[in-house]
Amino acid sequence: MKSYKKELWFNTTKKIEFINITGKVQETINESGVKEGLILVNPMHITAAVYVNDAESGLIEDYEKWLEELAPYHGDYKHNLTGEDNAHAHLKRQLMAHQVVHAITNGKLDLGPWEQIYYAEFDGQRKKRVLVKIIGE
Amino acid sequence: MKSYKKELWFNTTKKIEFINITGKVQETINESGVKEGLILVNPMHITAAVYVNDAESGLIEDYEKWLEELAPYHGDYKHNLTGEDNAHAHLKRQLMAHQVVHAITNGKLDLGPWEQIYYAEFDGQRKKRVLVKIIGE
Amino acid sequence: MKSYKKELWFNTTKKIEFINITGKVQETINESGVKEGLILVNPMHITAAVYVNDAESGLIEDYEKWLEELAPYHGDYKHNLTGEDNAHAHLKRQLMAHQVVHAITNGKLDLGPWEQIYYAEFDGQRKKRVLVKIIGE
Repeated sequence: MKSYKKELWFNTTKKIEFINITGKVQETINESGVKEGLILVNPMHITAAVYVNDAESGLIEDYEKWLEELAPYHGDYKHNLTGEDNAHAHLKRQLMAHQVVHAITNGKLDLGPWEQIYYAEFDGQRKKRVLVKIIGE
Repeated sequence: MKSYKKELWFNTTKKIEFINITGKVQETINESGVKEGLILVNPMHITAAVYVNDAESGLIEDYEKWLEELAPYHGDYKHNLTGEDNAHAHLKRQLMAHQVVHAITNGKLDLGPWEQIYYAEFDGQRKKRVLVKIIGE
Repeated sequence: MKSYKKELWFNTTKKIEFINITGKVQETINESGVKEGLILVNPMHITAAVYVNDAESGLIEDYEKWLEELAPYHGDYKHNLTGEDNAHAHLKRQLMAHQVVHAITNGKLDLGPWEQIYYAEFDGQRKKRVLVKIIGE
Protein backbone atom coordinates (compact mmCIF):
# COMPACT_ATOMS: atom_id res chain seq x y z
CA MET A 1 0.00 0.00 0.00
CA LYS A 2 1.18 3.49 -0.86
CA SER A 3 0.16 6.67 0.91
CA TYR A 4 0.79 10.27 -0.11
CA LYS A 5 0.00 13.58 1.52
CA LYS A 6 0.11 17.11 0.23
CA GLU A 7 -1.16 20.48 1.41
CA LEU A 8 -2.48 22.74 -1.34
CA TRP A 9 -2.15 26.45 -0.49
CA PHE A 10 -4.27 29.32 -1.80
CA ASN A 11 -4.30 33.08 -1.47
CA THR A 12 -7.94 33.99 -1.00
CA THR A 13 -8.49 37.63 -1.88
CA LYS A 14 -12.19 37.91 -1.11
CA LYS A 15 -14.18 37.05 2.02
CA ILE A 16 -16.23 34.52 0.03
CA GLU A 17 -14.54 32.75 -2.84
CA PHE A 18 -15.06 29.56 -4.85
CA ILE A 19 -11.91 28.02 -6.38
CA ASN A 20 -11.96 25.05 -8.78
CA ILE A 21 -9.17 22.76 -7.52
CA THR A 22 -9.84 19.71 -9.71
CA GLY A 23 -6.63 20.20 -11.72
CA LYS A 24 -4.46 20.54 -8.61
CA VAL A 25 -6.03 17.42 -7.10
CA GLN A 26 -5.28 15.43 -10.27
CA GLU A 27 -1.67 16.71 -10.25
CA THR A 28 -1.34 15.43 -6.69
CA ILE A 29 -2.52 12.00 -7.79
CA ASN A 30 0.06 12.07 -10.59
CA GLU A 31 2.83 12.88 -8.08
CA SER A 32 1.70 10.05 -5.78
CA GLY A 33 2.01 7.37 -8.43
CA VAL A 34 -1.18 5.74 -7.09
CA LYS A 35 -3.26 4.02 -9.79
CA GLU A 36 -6.10 2.50 -7.71
CA GLY A 37 -7.25 3.93 -4.41
CA LEU A 38 -9.13 6.59 -2.50
CA ILE A 39 -8.38 10.29 -2.11
CA LEU A 40 -9.56 12.57 0.68
CA VAL A 41 -9.76 16.31 -0.01
CA ASN A 42 -10.39 18.20 3.22
CA PRO A 43 -10.14 21.92 4.04
CA MET A 44 -7.87 22.48 7.05
CA HIS A 45 -10.05 25.47 8.02
CA ILE A 46 -13.45 25.33 9.71
CA THR A 47 -14.97 28.26 7.83
CA ALA A 48 -14.44 26.59 4.44
CA ALA A 49 -15.79 23.65 2.48
CA VAL A 50 -14.55 21.31 -0.18
CA TYR A 51 -17.50 20.18 -2.27
CA VAL A 52 -18.25 18.72 -5.70
CA ASN A 53 -20.57 20.32 -8.21
CA ASP A 54 -20.76 22.11 -11.54
CA ALA A 55 -18.16 24.58 -12.89
CA GLU A 56 -20.90 27.01 -13.93
CA SER A 57 -20.64 30.62 -12.81
CA GLY A 58 -24.40 31.13 -12.47
CA LEU A 59 -24.70 28.17 -10.13
CA ILE A 60 -21.85 29.49 -7.99
CA GLU A 61 -23.70 32.82 -7.66
CA ASP A 62 -26.82 30.84 -6.71
CA TYR A 63 -24.90 28.97 -4.00
CA GLU A 64 -23.52 32.19 -2.55
CA LYS A 65 -26.94 33.86 -2.39
CA TRP A 66 -28.70 30.77 -1.05
CA LEU A 67 -26.12 30.11 1.67
CA GLU A 68 -26.50 33.75 2.77
CA GLU A 69 -30.26 33.19 3.08
CA LEU A 70 -29.90 30.01 5.15
CA ALA A 71 -26.96 31.18 7.26
CA PRO A 72 -26.80 34.99 7.13
CA TYR A 73 -23.71 37.05 7.97
CA HIS A 74 -25.81 39.25 10.25
CA GLY A 75 -27.31 37.26 13.07
CA ASP A 76 -27.47 37.02 16.83
CA TYR A 77 -24.50 34.64 17.09
CA LYS A 78 -22.87 33.72 20.40
CA HIS A 79 -19.65 32.81 18.58
CA ASN A 80 -19.22 36.42 17.48
CA LEU A 81 -19.01 37.51 21.14
CA THR A 82 -15.46 36.06 21.03
CA GLY A 83 -14.49 38.97 18.77
CA GLU A 84 -14.93 37.04 15.52
CA ASP A 85 -17.47 37.99 12.84
CA ASN A 86 -17.40 34.58 11.13
CA ALA A 87 -20.11 32.50 12.85
CA HIS A 88 -22.04 32.51 9.57
CA ALA A 89 -19.03 30.91 7.84
CA HIS A 90 -18.94 28.00 10.33
CA LEU A 91 -22.62 27.41 9.50
CA LYS A 92 -22.38 27.79 5.72
CA ARG A 93 -19.55 25.31 5.44
CA GLN A 94 -21.62 22.57 7.13
CA LEU A 95 -24.43 23.05 4.59
CA MET A 96 -22.01 22.34 1.72
CA ALA A 97 -20.92 19.06 3.40
CA HIS A 98 -17.34 20.40 3.72
CA GLN A 99 -15.14 17.47 2.55
CA VAL A 100 -15.02 14.89 -0.23
CA VAL A 101 -13.60 11.43 -0.84
CA HIS A 102 -13.19 10.21 -4.39
CA ALA A 103 -12.03 7.15 -6.25
CA ILE A 104 -8.78 6.89 -8.17
CA THR A 105 -9.04 4.48 -11.10
CA ASN A 106 -6.22 3.96 -13.63
CA GLY A 107 -4.39 6.90 -12.07
CA LYS A 108 -7.26 9.33 -12.68
CA LEU A 109 -9.88 10.99 -10.49
CA ASP A 110 -12.92 8.82 -11.21
CA LEU A 111 -15.58 11.51 -11.65
CA GLY A 112 -18.84 11.83 -13.52
CA PRO A 113 -18.80 14.15 -16.56
CA TRP A 114 -19.82 17.27 -14.61
CA GLU A 115 -18.24 16.61 -11.22
CA GLN A 116 -15.68 19.29 -10.34
CA ILE A 117 -13.97 19.72 -6.97
CA TYR A 118 -14.27 23.19 -5.39
CA TYR A 119 -12.72 24.90 -2.41
CA ALA A 120 -15.32 27.32 -1.01
CA GLU A 121 -13.98 29.86 1.47
CA PHE A 122 -16.45 31.84 3.61
CA ASP A 123 -13.95 33.83 5.71
CA GLY A 124 -11.08 34.54 3.36
CA GLN A 125 -8.57 37.28 2.60
CA ARG A 126 -5.84 35.08 4.05
CA LYS A 127 -3.64 32.19 2.97
CA LYS A 128 -5.62 28.97 3.25
CA ARG A 129 -4.86 25.29 2.72
CA VAL A 130 -6.46 22.01 1.77
CA LEU A 131 -5.19 18.60 2.86
CA VAL A 132 -5.01 15.88 0.21
CA LYS A 133 -4.39 12.33 1.41
CA ILE A 134 -4.15 9.40 -0.98
CA ILE A 135 -4.00 5.69 -0.20
CA GLY A 136 -3.86 2.91 -2.70
CA GLU A 137 -1.31 1.28 -4.94
CA MET B 1 -4.39 -4.42 -1.12
CA LYS B 2 -7.35 -5.10 -3.35
CA SER B 3 -9.43 -2.48 -5.15
CA TYR B 4 -12.73 -2.88 -6.95
CA LYS B 5 -14.92 -0.51 -8.90
CA LYS B 6 -18.45 -0.79 -10.18
CA GLU B 7 -21.01 1.59 -11.60
CA LEU B 8 -24.60 0.94 -10.50
CA TRP B 9 -27.18 2.09 -13.08
CA PHE B 10 -30.77 3.13 -12.42
CA ASN B 11 -33.75 4.14 -14.53
CA THR B 12 -35.28 7.05 -12.66
CA THR B 13 -38.89 7.52 -13.73
CA LYS B 14 -39.77 10.56 -11.64
CA LYS B 15 -38.10 13.94 -11.29
CA ILE B 16 -37.53 13.32 -7.57
CA GLU B 17 -36.98 9.76 -6.48
CA PHE B 18 -35.45 7.96 -3.48
CA ILE B 19 -34.02 4.49 -4.15
CA ASN B 20 -32.74 2.16 -1.42
CA ILE B 21 -29.45 0.78 -2.80
CA THR B 22 -28.17 -1.01 0.31
CA GLY B 23 -28.65 -4.46 -1.23
CA LYS B 24 -26.84 -3.54 -4.44
CA VAL B 25 -23.95 -2.07 -2.46
CA GLN B 26 -23.62 -5.28 -0.42
CA GLU B 27 -23.67 -7.36 -3.64
CA THR B 28 -20.80 -5.23 -4.94
CA ILE B 29 -18.81 -5.98 -1.79
CA ASN B 30 -19.49 -9.69 -2.29
CA GLU B 31 -18.18 -9.49 -5.88
CA SER B 32 -15.05 -7.67 -4.74
CA GLY B 33 -14.01 -10.35 -2.27
CA VAL B 34 -12.89 -7.64 0.16
CA LYS B 35 -13.37 -8.61 3.82
CA GLU B 36 -11.89 -5.56 5.60
CA GLY B 37 -11.78 -2.10 4.09
CA LEU B 38 -13.59 1.07 3.10
CA ILE B 39 -16.27 1.63 0.47
CA LEU B 40 -17.14 4.91 -1.23
CA VAL B 41 -20.64 5.32 -2.69
CA ASN B 42 -20.81 8.47 -4.79
CA PRO B 43 -23.43 9.68 -7.29
CA MET B 44 -21.81 10.51 -10.64
CA HIS B 45 -24.44 13.25 -11.12
CA ILE B 46 -24.44 16.65 -9.48
CA THR B 47 -28.21 16.88 -9.00
CA ALA B 48 -28.33 13.73 -6.88
CA ALA B 49 -27.20 12.58 -3.45
CA VAL B 50 -26.19 9.34 -1.82
CA TYR B 51 -27.08 9.52 1.86
CA VAL B 52 -27.74 7.19 4.80
CA ASN B 53 -30.92 7.20 6.83
CA ASP B 54 -34.09 5.27 7.64
CA ALA B 55 -36.07 3.11 5.16
CA GLU B 56 -39.35 4.63 6.35
CA SER B 57 -41.73 6.01 3.76
CA GLY B 58 -43.04 8.82 5.98
CA LEU B 59 -39.52 10.11 6.58
CA ILE B 60 -38.80 10.10 2.86
CA GLU B 61 -41.91 12.23 2.28
CA ASP B 62 -40.68 14.54 5.04
CA TYR B 63 -37.28 14.88 3.35
CA GLU B 64 -38.86 15.72 0.01
CA LYS B 65 -41.13 18.40 1.48
CA TRP B 66 -38.40 19.88 3.69
CA LEU B 67 -35.83 20.06 0.88
CA GLU B 68 -38.41 21.85 -1.26
CA GLU B 69 -38.85 24.43 1.52
CA LEU B 70 -35.10 25.04 1.92
CA ALA B 71 -34.24 24.89 -1.80
CA PRO B 72 -37.44 25.48 -3.81
CA TYR B 73 -37.87 24.52 -7.46
CA HIS B 74 -39.17 28.00 -8.24
CA GLY B 75 -36.55 30.62 -7.52
CA ASP B 76 -34.59 33.42 -9.08
CA TYR B 77 -31.67 31.18 -10.08
CA LYS B 78 -28.84 32.34 -12.36
CA HIS B 79 -28.09 28.72 -13.26
CA ASN B 80 -31.50 28.39 -14.90
CA LEU B 81 -30.56 31.16 -17.38
CA THR B 82 -28.43 28.47 -19.09
CA GLY B 83 -31.68 26.79 -20.18
CA GLU B 84 -31.78 24.29 -17.30
CA ASP B 85 -34.55 24.19 -14.70
CA ASN B 86 -32.54 22.18 -12.17
CA ALA B 87 -30.73 24.78 -10.02
CA HIS B 88 -32.85 23.65 -7.07
CA ALA B 89 -31.54 20.09 -7.52
CA HIS B 90 -27.90 21.25 -7.28
CA LEU B 91 -28.83 22.92 -3.97
CA LYS B 92 -30.91 20.08 -2.51
CA ARG B 93 -28.20 17.53 -3.09
CA GLN B 94 -25.67 19.54 -1.03
CA LEU B 95 -28.08 19.62 1.95
CA MET B 96 -28.22 15.81 1.98
CA ALA B 97 -24.38 15.65 2.10
CA HIS B 98 -24.32 13.83 -1.28
CA GLN B 99 -21.85 10.92 -0.74
CA VAL B 100 -21.02 8.29 1.88
CA VAL B 101 -18.05 6.22 2.95
CA HIS B 102 -18.64 3.10 5.02
CA ALA B 103 -16.66 0.36 6.69
CA ILE B 104 -16.49 -3.22 5.45
CA THR B 105 -15.98 -5.70 8.30
CA ASN B 106 -15.99 -9.48 7.80
CA GLY B 107 -17.16 -8.94 4.24
CA LYS B 108 -20.28 -7.01 5.30
CA LEU B 109 -21.32 -3.36 5.23
CA ASP B 110 -20.71 -2.35 8.84
CA LEU B 111 -23.89 -0.37 9.53
CA GLY B 112 -25.97 0.45 12.57
CA PRO B 113 -29.35 -1.33 12.81
CA TRP B 114 -31.29 1.42 10.97
CA GLU B 115 -28.65 2.72 8.55
CA GLN B 116 -29.75 2.26 4.93
CA ILE B 117 -28.00 3.70 1.87
CA TYR B 118 -30.20 5.75 -0.46
CA TYR B 119 -29.74 7.27 -3.89
CA ALA B 120 -31.80 10.48 -3.99
CA GLU B 121 -32.35 11.93 -7.44
CA PHE B 122 -33.63 15.51 -7.77
CA ASP B 123 -33.57 15.83 -11.58
CA GLY B 124 -34.49 12.40 -12.85
CA GLN B 125 -36.44 10.78 -15.66
CA ARG B 126 -33.16 9.60 -17.14
CA LYS B 127 -30.67 6.76 -16.68
CA LYS B 128 -28.41 7.60 -13.75
CA ARG B 129 -25.41 5.95 -12.12
CA VAL B 130 -23.58 5.64 -8.83
CA LEU B 131 -19.88 4.89 -8.47
CA VAL B 132 -18.86 2.29 -5.91
CA LYS B 133 -15.16 2.00 -5.08
CA ILE B 134 -13.81 -0.48 -2.58
CA ILE B 135 -10.33 -0.78 -1.16
CA GLY B 136 -9.19 -3.28 1.40
CA GLU B 137 -8.21 -6.91 1.54
CA MET C 1 -2.47 -3.28 4.79
CA LYS C 2 -3.82 -3.11 8.33
CA SER C 3 -7.42 -2.52 9.29
CA TYR C 4 -8.87 -1.78 12.72
CA LYS C 5 -12.40 -1.29 13.97
CA LYS C 6 -13.76 0.03 17.22
CA GLU C 7 -17.14 1.15 18.49
CA LEU C 8 -17.04 4.14 20.84
CA TRP C 9 -19.99 4.17 23.29
CA PHE C 10 -21.51 7.22 24.97
CA ASN C 11 -24.21 7.83 27.55
CA THR C 12 -26.14 10.80 26.22
CA THR C 13 -28.05 12.48 29.04
CA LYS C 14 -29.82 15.21 27.07
CA LYS C 15 -32.00 15.05 23.97
CA ILE C 16 -29.52 17.27 22.10
CA GLU C 17 -25.87 16.99 23.03
CA PHE C 18 -22.51 17.81 21.42
CA ILE C 19 -19.56 15.67 22.56
CA ASN C 20 -15.94 16.34 21.54
CA ILE C 21 -14.55 12.91 20.60
CA THR C 22 -11.21 13.97 19.11
CA GLY C 23 -9.21 12.44 21.99
CA LYS C 24 -11.03 9.10 21.79
CA VAL C 25 -10.50 8.98 18.03
CA GLN C 26 -6.75 9.58 18.47
CA GLU C 27 -6.60 6.84 21.14
CA THR C 28 -8.19 4.46 18.65
CA ILE C 29 -5.50 5.30 16.11
CA ASN C 30 -2.84 4.62 18.77
CA GLU C 31 -4.38 1.20 19.47
CA SER C 32 -4.47 0.36 15.75
CA GLY C 33 -0.76 0.93 15.22
CA VAL C 34 -1.53 2.53 11.84
CA LYS C 35 0.91 5.30 10.90
CA GLU C 36 -0.35 6.27 7.41
CA GLY C 37 -3.92 5.81 6.31
CA LEU C 38 -7.53 6.94 6.41
CA ILE C 39 -10.01 6.89 9.28
CA LEU C 40 -13.80 6.89 9.02
CA VAL C 41 -15.81 8.17 11.99
CA ASN C 42 -19.50 7.41 11.49
CA PRO C 43 -22.44 7.53 13.91
CA MET C 44 -24.29 4.23 13.96
CA HIS C 45 -27.53 6.15 14.61
CA ILE C 46 -29.57 8.06 12.07
CA THR C 47 -30.58 10.90 14.38
CA ALA C 48 -26.96 11.87 15.06
CA ALA C 49 -24.04 13.40 13.20
CA VAL C 50 -20.28 13.27 13.38
CA TYR C 51 -18.88 16.57 12.15
CA VAL C 52 -15.72 18.67 12.37
CA ASN C 53 -15.64 22.22 13.63
CA ASP C 54 -14.52 24.48 16.47
CA ALA C 55 -14.47 23.52 20.17
CA GLU C 56 -16.07 26.84 21.13
CA SER C 57 -19.15 26.78 23.36
CA GLY C 58 -20.77 29.84 21.74
CA LEU C 59 -20.57 28.24 18.30
CA ILE C 60 -22.14 25.06 19.61
CA GLU C 61 -25.06 27.09 20.99
CA ASP C 62 -25.31 28.79 17.58
CA TYR C 63 -25.46 25.40 15.82
CA GLU C 64 -28.21 24.17 18.13
CA LYS C 65 -30.36 27.28 17.63
CA TRP C 66 -29.78 27.41 13.87
CA LEU C 67 -30.57 23.72 13.32
CA GLU C 68 -33.80 24.22 15.26
CA GLU C 69 -34.71 27.06 12.88
CA LEU C 70 -33.98 25.03 9.72
CA ALA C 71 -35.42 21.73 10.98
CA PRO C 72 -37.78 22.46 13.90
CA TYR C 73 -38.86 19.89 16.48
CA HIS C 74 -42.48 20.89 15.98
CA GLY C 75 -43.58 20.25 12.43
CA ASP C 76 -46.12 18.42 10.35
CA TYR C 77 -43.92 15.31 9.94
CA LYS C 78 -45.21 12.06 8.45
CA HIS C 79 -42.44 10.15 10.22
CA ASN C 80 -43.90 11.10 13.60
CA LEU C 81 -47.13 9.26 12.71
CA THR C 82 -45.13 6.06 13.42
CA GLY C 83 -45.17 7.03 17.10
CA GLU C 84 -41.73 8.68 17.06
CA ASP C 85 -41.15 12.36 17.82
CA ASN C 86 -37.71 12.51 16.21
CA ALA C 87 -38.32 13.42 12.55
CA HIS C 88 -36.56 16.73 13.21
CA ALA C 89 -33.45 14.80 14.34
CA HIS C 90 -33.28 12.84 11.05
CA LEU C 91 -33.33 16.22 9.25
CA LYS C 92 -30.85 18.05 11.47
CA ARG C 93 -28.25 15.33 11.17
CA GLN C 94 -28.23 15.59 7.35
CA LEU C 95 -27.53 19.35 7.57
CA MET C 96 -24.38 18.69 9.61
CA ALA C 97 -23.12 16.25 6.93
CA HIS C 98 -23.23 13.37 9.48
CA GLN C 99 -19.85 11.55 8.99
CA VAL C 100 -16.17 12.37 8.50
CA VAL C 101 -13.11 10.80 6.96
CA HIS C 102 -9.69 12.02 8.00
CA ALA C 103 -6.06 11.41 7.21
CA ILE C 104 -3.64 9.65 9.54
CA THR C 105 -0.07 10.88 9.07
CA ASN C 106 2.82 9.74 11.27
CA GLY C 107 0.32 8.02 13.55
CA LYS C 108 -1.62 11.22 14.23
CA LEU C 109 -4.98 12.60 13.11
CA ASP C 110 -3.90 15.05 10.41
CA LEU C 111 -6.10 18.04 11.30
CA GLY C 112 -5.89 21.78 10.84
CA PRO C 113 -5.24 23.80 14.03
CA TRP C 114 -8.93 24.28 14.88
CA GLU C 115 -10.46 21.08 13.52
CA GLN C 116 -12.12 19.05 16.30
CA ILE C 117 -14.31 15.97 15.80
CA TYR C 118 -17.76 16.12 17.42
CA TYR C 119 -20.54 13.65 17.97
CA ALA C 120 -23.84 15.57 17.79
CA GLU C 121 -26.86 13.72 19.11
CA PHE C 122 -30.35 15.04 18.30
CA ASP C 123 -32.44 12.29 19.95
CA GLY C 124 -30.45 11.24 22.98
CA GLN C 125 -31.01 10.14 26.57
CA ARG C 126 -29.86 6.67 25.58
CA LYS C 127 -26.57 4.81 25.07
CA LYS C 128 -25.22 5.65 21.63
CA ARG C 129 -22.23 4.53 19.58
CA VAL C 130 -19.86 5.68 16.85
CA LEU C 131 -18.05 3.37 14.46
CA VAL C 132 -14.38 4.04 13.85
CA LYS C 133 -12.71 2.16 11.00
CA ILE C 134 -9.05 2.61 10.12
CA ILE C 135 -7.15 1.31 7.13
CA GLY C 136 -3.51 1.91 6.35
CA GLU C 137 -0.16 0.62 7.48
